[in-house]
Amino acid sequence: MSASAEPLPARRGRPGYDREQVLTVAVTLFNEQGYDATSVADLASRLGLTKSALYHHFDSKEQLLALALDEALDGLEGVLDAPDAAVADPAERLGAVLRGAVRVLVDKLPHVTLLLRVRGNSDVERAALERRRAFDHRVTALVVEAQRAGQVRTDVDGAVATRLLFGMVNSIVEWYRPTGPVDRDRLAHDVVAVALDGMRTR
Amino acid sequence: MSASAEPLPARRGRPGYDREQVLTVAVTLFNEQGYDATSVADLASRLGLTKSALYHHFDSKEQLLALALDEALDGLEGVLDAPDAAVADPAERLGAVLRGAVRVLVDKLPHVTLLLRVRGNSDVERAALERRRAFDHRVTALVVEAQRAGQVRTDVDGAVATRLLFGMVNSIVEWYRPTGPVDRDRLAHDVVAVALDGMRTR
Repeated sequence: MSASAEPLPARRGRPGYDREQVLTVAVTLFNEQGYDATSVADLASRLGLTKSALYHHFDSKEQLLALALDEALDGLEGVLDAPDAAVADPAERLGAVLRGAVRVLVDKLPHVTLLLRVRGNSDVERAALERRRAFDHRVTALVVEAQRAGQVRTDVDGAVATRLLFGMVNSIVEWYRPTGPVDRDRLAHDVVAVALDGMRTR
Repeated sequence: MSASAEPLPARRGRPGYDREQVLTVAVTLFNEQGYDATSVADLASRLGLTKSALYHHFDSKEQLLALALDEALDGLEGVLDAPDAAVADPAERLGAVLRGAVRVLVDKLPHVTLLLRVRGNSDVERAALERRRAFDHRVTALVVEAQRAGQVRTDVDGAVATRLLFGMVNSIVEWYRPTGPVDRDRLAHDVVAVALDGMRTR
């Protein structure tokens, strides 16, 4: 909506939210009851805002979905482009990518949870799936590079290995709670330890 | 229903199904459109049966859910009780359990997919979640035993390791197709290789 829209609700004694907070509440609600089953009225009610106050922040429910999926995907793609992932050694880079992906997943837990549930029911969802596939292809290329360098086992196909490794990473959304006993960096360590070096002692 | 119910539909020229086939079609439909959103009429329509012919096989939609979840859970629990998992060496046993779980997952793909989506919305679902938790606890006990025997790394908590390993195994339902290039035993090998020995060459 335009800058001439009604003032932010906080100024009238109702809860005040910035765009990021509205987005986080929306994503949490989408995860709880499903995107399709969530109405703008449900969201306004959860926030304690009127629908028109909510439309001050966002144009549509689909815009909220698109922004949430972008935030998850920007985070994951950023991991591949981060300085940690720019080292020459491909196995080290793979470790940095897994570690970075776990951190993004913990920092953006609701957004990534939503991304992982997307099934391609609209143009927005299909575009997100396309970006996920492109991300997977870049990780697979890294696994294959590490295989060619003799650093990573070659008896597992690179694309299958990528699916298994990201299956492990993505499963974190099913059980991880940031307030629990395992902190983000410990979890990133655990994933890289199991994924690269395995459970068995050497 | 009692043995005096109407004859099987096949005898009247309609499609004939045994209980197991009806169950598989039901589970596939539950996975496609959600258990709650699937009516007995939807299921009868998919099977090309009347509702009364369907009730010849099953008492209720919830009975179908319970049978499907039992089948997935019986398979997984059977892996822990199988002869392969009865060897003395705990790391070998852990490998056998992971291999067995992958095989159950491939053989009962729709049933395990349904199990993994259960959120505890009814007594049947809560009982299934309870059995899943008991299974996880038995696997965690095996990981801890292998840690105490010095065979498995101790810098990752046993319960976290179990979650990561089964996160990898369970993620297979998201992408695996039995008609694809990776057969069941190859996939079981790949999971055990990555989980126990890691991606990195030794």
